[in-house]
Amino acid sequence: MNKYLAELIGTFWLVLGGCGSAVLAAAFPEVGIGLLGVSLAFGLTVLTMAFAIGHISGCHLNPAVTLGLLAGGRCPTRDAVPYIVAQVVGAVAAGGVLYLIASGQEGFDLAAGFASNGYGEHSPGGYSMTAALVTEVVMTMMFLFVIMGATDKRAPQGLAPVAIGLCLTLIHLISIPVTNTSVNPARSTGVAVYVGDWAVGQLWLFWVAPIVGGVLGAVIYKLVSTEADEA
Amino acid sequence: MNKYLAELIGTFWLVLGGCGSAVLAAAFPEVGIGLLGVSLAFGLTVLTMAFAIGHISGCHLNPAVTLGLLAGGRCPTRDAVPYIVAQVVGAVAAGGVLYLIASGQEGFDLAAGFASNGYGEHSPGGYSMTAALVTEVVMTMMFLFVIMGATDKRAPQGLAPVAIGLCLTLIHLISIPVTNTSVNPARSTGVAVYVGDWAVGQLWLFWVAPIVGGVLGAVIYKLVSTEADEA
Amino acid sequence: MNKYLAELIGTFWLVLGGCGSAVLAAAFPEVGIGLLGVSLAFGLTVLTMAFAIGHISGCHLNPAVTLGLLAGGRCPTRDAVPYIVAQVVGAVAAGGVLYLIASGQEGFDLAAGFASNGYGEHSPGGYSMTAALVTEVVMTMMFLFVIMGATDKRAPQGLAPVAIGLCLTLIHLISIPVTNTSVNPARSTGVAVYVGDWAVGQLWLFWVAPIVGGVLGAVIYKLVSTEADEA
Amino acid sequence: MNKYLAELIGTFWLVLGGCGSAVLAAAFPEVGIGLLGVSLAFGLTVLTMAFAIGHISGCHLNPAVTLGLLAGGRCPTRDAVPYIVAQVVGAVAAGGVLYLIASGQEGFDLAAGFASNGYGEHSPGGYSMTAALVTEVVMTMMFLFVIMGATDKRAPQGLAPVAIGLCLTLIHLISIPVTNTSVNPARSTGVAVYVGDWAVGQLWLFWVAPIVGGVLGAVIYKLVSTEADEA
Repeated sequence: MNKYLAELIGTFWLVLGGCGSAVLAAAFPEVGIGLLGVSLAFGLTVLTMAFAIGHISGCHLNPAVTLGLLAGGRCPTRDAVPYIVAQVVGAVAAGGVLYLIASGQEGFDLAAGFASNGYGEHSPGGYSMTAALVTEVVMTMMFLFVIMGATDKRAPQGLAPVAIGLCLTLIHLISIPVTNTSVNPARSTGVAVYVGDWAVGQLWLFWVAPIVGGVLGAVIYKLVSTEADEA
Repeated sequence: MNKYLAELIGTFWLVLGGCGSAVLAAAFPEVGIGLLGVSLAFGLTVLTMAFAIGHISGCHLNPAVTLGLLAGGRCPTRDAVPYIVAQVVGAVAAGGVLYLIASGQEGFDLAAGFASNGYGEHSPGGYSMTAALVTEVVMTMMFLFVIMGATDKRAPQGLAPVAIGLCLTLIHLISIPVTNTSVNPARSTGVAVYVGDWAVGQLWLFWVAPIVGGVLGAVIYKLVSTEADEA
Repeated sequence: MNKYLAELIGTFWLVLGGCGSAVLAAAFPEVGIGLLGVSLAFGLTVLTMAFAIGHISGCHLNPAVTLGLLAGGRCPTRDAVPYIVAQVVGAVAAGGVLYLIASGQEGFDLAAGFASNGYGEHSPGGYSMTAALVTEVVMTMMFLFVIMGATDKRAPQGLAPVAIGLCLTLIHLISIPVTNTSVNPARSTGVAVYVGDWAVGQLWLFWVAPIVGGVLGAVIYKLVSTEADEA
Repeated sequence: MNKYLAELIGTFWLVLGGCGSAVLAAAFPEVGIGLLGVSLAFGLTVLTMAFAIGHISGCHLNPAVTLGLLAGGRCPTRDAVPYIVAQVVGAVAAGGVLYLIASGQEGFDLAAGFASNGYGEHSPGGYSMTAALVTEVVMTMMFLFVIMGATDKRAPQGLAPVAIGLCLTLIHLISIPVTNTSVNPARSTGVAVYVGDWAVGQLWLFWVAPIVGGVLGAVIYKLVSTEADEA
């Protein structure tokens, strides 16, 4: 049970911290943190939680990570479903707390997006659905490639939280303008359920693309890595 | 005695560095560091001091951390009061040095806030007292959860200063617009005493909420972690 | 083979992440990540890949690094050509994926530069060819000096990815205004082939200068370091 | 000899990277890196060099560090003068290379300051000489306190470059508006000699204050630390 609770709390932190910085601080007048600050915040939620609960649950915080690691042979099959349930519950709880805080400011408007992911007219930069699909698949693919590599026995020990957290920062630095960056179906769900409407309508892409990309990235690393073992 | 002196110097650095960057550099014309720079500065005061004095005092620098760790069984009872006294003294000393420097610029105005924490009309973004309370409780709760986890024997050794410092950066990235971010009663006190007036009048919230949150976070980690030990 | 594949994937990530952040996010209205965000992105591509594939290929991702390490006695001669081929193939593939994504936004204009490197009228800040040459030689020289030092047996173990990745960030913080920063012929080639025209016409400088600088830096480190061994 | 050469190259990097980012990139139109980027650049010069040459020379790169460590019993007396000479030579060489690059842009004006340190009317924010003195003494004092602590045998091994580099970033985040931040007489000298005039006239403060502060910080750490040893 404790592993599932850790995943729930960790994903709560990912959504509260990442989406929270976007909703509350990104566009603060004059001194707002911008997309750079939001990118850093997302990465730091993972970095901090990986140090805090890595030894308890492995710190996936993301259904695409759980399924990628399953495909890569790094996650027991019996954990997959309860991990994903815990992640989604944590994410939705975080969306609720964020709503409670954000609505404490006069003029708060859920319709501004509440950090939801989107494509087409709901892409921050107006990118097409194809661009969104390619972006989410490729970004999650590279994310799992890095996760698999940085947690390889041959990689420097103890530093995977830094590598993985900052990889998420990097992914946001590239792709917020395209989809607001998901690479994480739980994160997308955690805010979309409060916005409803288009955010829920486009949610399918942010489940399908990250999971496809995640599985691809883990399998590709396994191939490259296995050859290295044999060499 | 040396432990208490280390806490005093460390908290001096936290307030001078964090509040100093906010007062002196955040809104510098054209090239100011903004809330992102201030968030980084707060985190780096803790990161640098945790490397410098972690082996002397544990580097709490924060009454909510000291009381949280006490609740989590990681701080001797006899240290709690002297640690907190040292932290407040260091914080107030830092406020004094910052005042000395800041007032060396013509047009310096203490009434601009001097990096004090506040809610309602004194919240940077005009957030309500309820939003402020929720924010400070939840942020400090997650802070102590991460501190407990990152200093767990099973976590990567030697990297807790990075995890904890960057967690404080993350917390600021999220919550400066709501309360100017405290999660630390000593930090709040260190500047409020110079501003007086509303800053002192609202100070109670920045003692109560961080301490409640800190104790909660440490206890929750202990529960999750103990189950992990038994498993 | 697996080493070459790792170099290909790693350089793909460097160009997609670094140039991608520049093309997609740097100048996003109001909240764009700016040159600071792009600098961070370039560095994080190397940091993350060095953790992920350092144990497979050494993670060069750059012909100037490969040839510098060859000159410094840290790279087998037989690897040099296949590494460089793999790096260029990965870079060009990344340019293609980036083009696919970027062109999903209405109004995308390849002629805006597509993150190509340039000098004279194609330097972001209008710097002369001489300034560009000096910059690329000196920056790559210092890059290889740091790479050689941080991977020295006497340096802290396991942290070279942090040192080297953040060194690339630093190099971009200094020199994007001069040449858009190359220090990496594969990165320059990966986007120039799509822009053609002036970008290809100026490409020679971004092969010659980084390679000259890289060899210089590695040899200088070797000299300083050898003396240290003998002392 | 190799130690001195390492100090020369390292200080060359500190001035080229730190002052270079300030001169070339800080105020670049629209996407400039600002004071936050410059702060990061200064810190990363030290972080990268500490990994690269820490095992050769200890990586002081700063007369105030050398004299502080001398006072703290961490630097052999015979090294002090040659280290300082090497640091100043490296710094002045970097100023020359930076001048060569910067003057490759039309409209370059040395009189804009060339990243020199100053007080009064030459302080970026117009701070008084007293504010400048206090700032430089206190910042260098805390810098040496952190350096002494992070390199203490009881601190986490191998991470001092991160702690010390990011401490310099933090110091810049606070104090660029006051003095343009020195805490390093070699860095101040390396650019002031090209500007001449007021920059050389005010140079005394940026030798006196950092050295006084550095010695103070090292001695204070030694006191606190010794008590800890005896306890």
